[in-house]
Amino acid sequence: MIGRPDERSRLSSIDADQVGQEMHSFIAELFPICRSITGEGVRETVRRIGGRIPLDVSEVPTGTPALDWIVPREWNIRDAYVADASGKRVIDFRESNLHVVSYSVPFRGRLDLDQLREHTYTVPDHPEWIPYRTSYYSESWGLCLSQRQLEALPEGEYDVCIDASLRDGNLTYAECYLPGATEDEFLFSCHICHPSLANDNLSGVAVSTFLAERLARVERRYSYRFLFVPGTIGSLTWLARNQDNVERIRHGLVLACLGDAAAFTFKRSRRGDTEIDRTVEHVLRHAVPDQTVIDFDPYGYDERQYCSPGFDLPVGALSRSRHGTFPEYHTSADNLAFVRPAALGESLAVTLKVIEVIEGNGTYRNLSPRGEPQLGRRGLYPSIGGPSAEAEQMALLWVLNQSDGRHALLEIAERAAMPFSEIRRAADRLVERGLLAPVEGSPSVGSDP
Amino acid sequence: MIGRPDERSRLSSIDADQVGQEMHSFIAELFPICRSITGEGVRETVRRIGGRIPLDVSEVPTGTPALDWIVPREWNIRDAYVADASGKRVIDFRESNLHVVSYSVPFRGRLDLDQLREHTYTVPDHPEWIPYRTSYYSESWGLCLSQRQLEALPEGEYDVCIDASLRDGNLTYAECYLPGATEDEFLFSCHICHPSLANDNLSGVAVSTFLAERLARVERRYSYRFLFVPGTIGSLTWLARNQDNVERIRHGLVLACLGDAAAFTFKRSRRGDTEIDRTVEHVLRHAVPDQTVIDFDPYGYDERQYCSPGFDLPVGALSRSRHGTFPEYHTSADNLAFVRPAALGESLAVTLKVIEVIEGNGTYRNLSPRGEPQLGRRGLYPSIGGPSAEAEQMALLWVLNQSDGRHALLEIAERAAMPFSEIRRAADRLVERGLLAPVEGSPSVGSDP
Amino acid sequence: MIGRPDERSRLSSIDADQVGQEMHSFIAELFPICRSITGEGVRETVRRIGGRIPLDVSEVPTGTPALDWIVPREWNIRDAYVADASGKRVIDFRESNLHVVSYSVPFRGRLDLDQLREHTYTVPDHPEWIPYRTSYYSESWGLCLSQRQLEALPEGEYDVCIDASLRDGNLTYAECYLPGATEDEFLFSCHICHPSLANDNLSGVAVSTFLAERLARVERRYSYRFLFVPGTIGSLTWLARNQDNVERIRHGLVLACLGDAAAFTFKRSRRGDTEIDRTVEHVLRHAVPDQTVIDFDPYGYDERQYCSPGFDLPVGALSRSRHGTFPEYHTSADNLAFVRPAALGESLAVTLKVIEVIEGNGTYRNLSPRGEPQLGRRGLYPSIGGPSAEAEQMALLWVLNQSDGRHALLEIAERAAMPFSEIRRAADRLVERGLLAPVEGSPSVGSDP
Repeated sequence: MIGRPDERSRLSSIDADQVGQEMHSFIAELFPICRSITGEGVRETVRRIGGRIPLDVSEVPTGTPALDWIVPREWNIRDAYVADASGKRVIDFRESNLHVVSYSVPFRGRLDLDQLREHTYTVPDHPEWIPYRTSYYSESWGLCLSQRQLEALPEGEYDVCIDASLRDGNLTYAECYLPGATEDEFLFSCHICHPSLANDNLSGVAVSTFLAERLARVERRYSYRFLFVPGTIGSLTWLARNQDNVERIRHGLVLACLGDAAAFTFKRSRRGDTEIDRTVEHVLRHAVPDQTVIDFDPYGYDERQYCSPGFDLPVGALSRSRHGTFPEYHTSADNLAFVRPAALGESLAVTLKVIEVIEGNGTYRNLSPRGEPQLGRRGLYPSIGGPSAEAEQMALLWVLNQSDGRHALLEIAERAAMPFSEIRRAADRLVERGLLAPVEGSPSVGSDP
Repeated sequence: MIGRPDERSRLSSIDADQVGQEMHSFIAELFPICRSITGEGVRETVRRIGGRIPLDVSEVPTGTPALDWIVPREWNIRDAYVADASGKRVIDFRESNLHVVSYSVPFRGRLDLDQLREHTYTVPDHPEWIPYRTSYYSESWGLCLSQRQLEALPEGEYDVCIDASLRDGNLTYAECYLPGATEDEFLFSCHICHPSLANDNLSGVAVSTFLAERLARVERRYSYRFLFVPGTIGSLTWLARNQDNVERIRHGLVLACLGDAAAFTFKRSRRGDTEIDRTVEHVLRHAVPDQTVIDFDPYGYDERQYCSPGFDLPVGALSRSRHGTFPEYHTSADNLAFVRPAALGESLAVTLKVIEVIEGNGTYRNLSPRGEPQLGRRGLYPSIGGPSAEAEQMALLWVLNQSDGRHALLEIAERAAMPFSEIRRAADRLVERGLLAPVEGSPSVGSDP
Repeated sequence: MIGRPDERSRLSSIDADQVGQEMHSFIAELFPICRSITGEGVRETVRRIGGRIPLDVSEVPTGTPALDWIVPREWNIRDAYVADASGKRVIDFRESNLHVVSYSVPFRGRLDLDQLREHTYTVPDHPEWIPYRTSYYSESWGLCLSQRQLEALPEGEYDVCIDASLRDGNLTYAECYLPGATEDEFLFSCHICHPSLANDNLSGVAVSTFLAERLARVERRYSYRFLFVPGTIGSLTWLARNQDNVERIRHGLVLACLGDAAAFTFKRSRRGDTEIDRTVEHVLRHAVPDQTVIDFDPYGYDERQYCSPGFDLPVGALSRSRHGTFPEYHTSADNLAFVRPAALGESLAVTLKVIEVIEGNGTYRNLSPRGEPQLGRRGLYPSIGGPSAEAEQMALLWVLNQSDGRHALLEIAERAAMPFSEIRRAADRLVERGLLAPVEGSPSVGSDP
């Protein structure tokens, strides 16, 4: 079981640079696919994730109720362009799938420049960038292009073609379930509904996939569920179909925007002080130089759904730059150059450390609670001196002093201002020497051999 | 009922500058009257307030027990002076009623300058100002004058006349009761026992009177009681006669020193975290640039009585400059120039906003609590973009997310860091669309049409 | 009883400078004795303390179990030296008892310089200082000397003699018990196991002894127990033999390092918010300009044992410089010059103030809780004005306002930001006037005549 020290260290000892390169390659493979909240792009994406980890794929028919929502028609697109009088494509879907507003209805027609302009979107502040726009719930069509492109269009007539379809079909989502020693679940959720955007979408997909890959290889205390869902409607659909089982979710993280160069941001769950909240805050504090922790707010990614009051699940959200706060957000500048292998590797490493804490946390009882036990005769005094030996001894003393059955190891680590791994190692040694025992019913039995 | 959006906005939309001028005129009308804790000055003041709002006037006979106190004899004064050998008045009550120590016993006699000095009070640091002094509970007489006046008196003999009476009579106080939908009360209390002092006394009287005037015109959720009482003995007498009904008081504010140019000071109730505490802090934070919030202490105005441990009512105190902390306090410099129309108007406006929150606060339940409801198909997405549309949408999301029956709207506004009015408007819209319902027994039924 | 104002002020009114000189003389008397965790040095130390205060001395045989530990063999030393080829002593126990590692096994032999070096300890950063080392639980011998001494030793052969004995015997500790009105105890504990070290050891012994001396002379509400014990094994032995009675310990302080010139450090008990924690923090805040308050950690002195989870006693630790943080710690520089009479006197005074608060604290009920009682007719208004009269009046108002049976006087003093003594004096006056009564079962009955 992953609670065992060897399993834990095997899991979290990764070569972040090398694995970051692999993650970036995987993102590069998925990048060209034109995803939306339904359609072949999602199916193809899921297929490729399924090449790496075991996936259950669900297809939910158009019209299916999903809590307060209804699964929409399926959207697919084959081609789209604007051609000038000479037939030359001046806007071409084949060059960037961002050129078409997602869920645009099919359209063919000739428009003059003024008419065309009413259907175009640009990013005036960044004249080279193409924006990303959607129109899921109102029937319309639109084209996104750079401000430069728009300004370069001469007066005249243009042929517009949006060769898309919006028909009854299915919403596609996938989940990777890795059973553990208990049915209590750790949920990871990422969205798979954005077309060629690297950080906002694919970085979360990559971290989730690589996490699942590594977790699949080790024994696990918790069961793990990785959701690859279209944003909002996907998580709502999953919640609608699984609402009787959500109480199994003991910890959860929404993963997104994890590939850019910024420091980490952790957004707390709605409850704000659950074990996942305390764990991520602890890991970030000890693992990385800078980090931002913010309280829950009802905006962002699918934590909005998991933390709606009727579910109120212990689900936080981990990202680097926050959605909507970086200029590249929802533009063509959120590309393969914007996500960095080193950042991706570090995001994976931090998430593995979160799992290491959650797997290894538990509550113990000091079996010799009156006075300090004599560590010396049990070989628990550091053999050599120096700062690490002092830390080792302090970890033993903290665990003994606080283990009255009411303080979990994570809480002890926080009070001692020491990394969880040192406190957990001390607990393992004390259990080995018969000075400490797990509390019956404690979440942790992690040190079982 | 005032909880209705139209009533609330009708109440709180005042022209602060214009109404501030009217308040200042009212203060100017009351300023010359020689008030004390009993007597004709109080009666005349009450009569003039009664010209604006409905008042019940109580006359409580001398000797009546009032909790640990006893209603004192009634004091009245007709004239007072010090005349020099030539008969010229060198100190003259007709010029300023501050010249006589309040509750001075009658006196007539001839004194030399040294003897006279033993009965005089000045403000040496401000040689032009006359101090305000009282001697309610020890029988003596005294004269207040400016340091300049005192220094200008030549040696010689002086005729002193204090044509006052201290006889069995009555203590006078008045209350304006405005019944609401419930018997739960919002209490406002101000003191009416100071003679020609504008900020410390009359500013509170003016804010109370103008508040009552406005509240009388609208439907009310709470019942409102405005007390116009002599300080200490007046509130004690009212409490003694109403002690079986004080549990109806759900919120209360003592109003004083609300006309000077300083920023607001809110002094919390003894309990410190009641709804009135949280409301005033919220309103000040959003309504004015600077403000000071201090914890309760057992000094100040009549909050001392309302917050004594046997009552412990949820009553705070709102002022601008705090009693005793500004140099003009209890001197002739607390005059009509010291109180500003704009400050009076703003004080009224802030107090109306407090009422707006208290009237509109309540606890709701999201009727579609699992996942976010689809706002778009209910016309709840902002029609046009921009910051105010974003705020509008965030207000809706906050109310939906937090309305699990445990968080009142004020608490939601605080968590969202938004003004109450925006949160309340969002709640009204959600109720209208059937997405939200008030919790049975919640204090708020404000959105009833 | 000490709760009486006269007793309290008699206790805490000391001439800190003069008594500091006496404490320093007492330290000077004990300084030369070679103490360890057992042996004649401890016995002689206890004998001299017993010359000042009544002591019960316990002798606990080698091999006696003490919780998880066992009482070790008794160590005694008569002489020790290193002599050069000419027979001249180059290291001499008679010059400093720090020269021998405490609990060194007997040894006689001839060693060359390299062999000798393997048994020596110095303080390289402070080449004139001799370190203090121990080897209680591993059988070895060693010599401590200054870096200068070591460097001055020429190549050659040396005769080493450690004329010590390590044999079955006893562990010695002493306690001074001063019974009070109740069996509830205030525990003071200091260690007596260090040889010639002045701050780390003897300053705590001196403060404890002088405290007991003063307390013995007054009536006491609590019973007081002063423990003079070898560090760790001594407190463990005492706890083992008294574990059925520790629940009597209502407050406790470990005293150590109280003679140096640094500001005070208070280390909170494991529980962190007990009455002793709040009391020491209050006293330090009002009594001294600077102070540091730190949370409990499982290192330091015998608070480690008293605060082990099986006991979890309300015991904090008071010191000036903290153990291990000053360069003189555990070296010959922790000498009679390092401890200052003025610092010792102030440490005693602060500890007496702590006792004054603990003895005088209690919960009262305002007998006239509705409105303020009329202080004037009860002679409770200050006779003369000025800041101290204002403070006096505020203390009365605070006690009346907060005494609803739920707030102890210490809590009232904290809320009023006033020294406890002023709040307590106000309570005494209010009790005298019949306005206040102690709550049945309250810890305080202090104002009984």
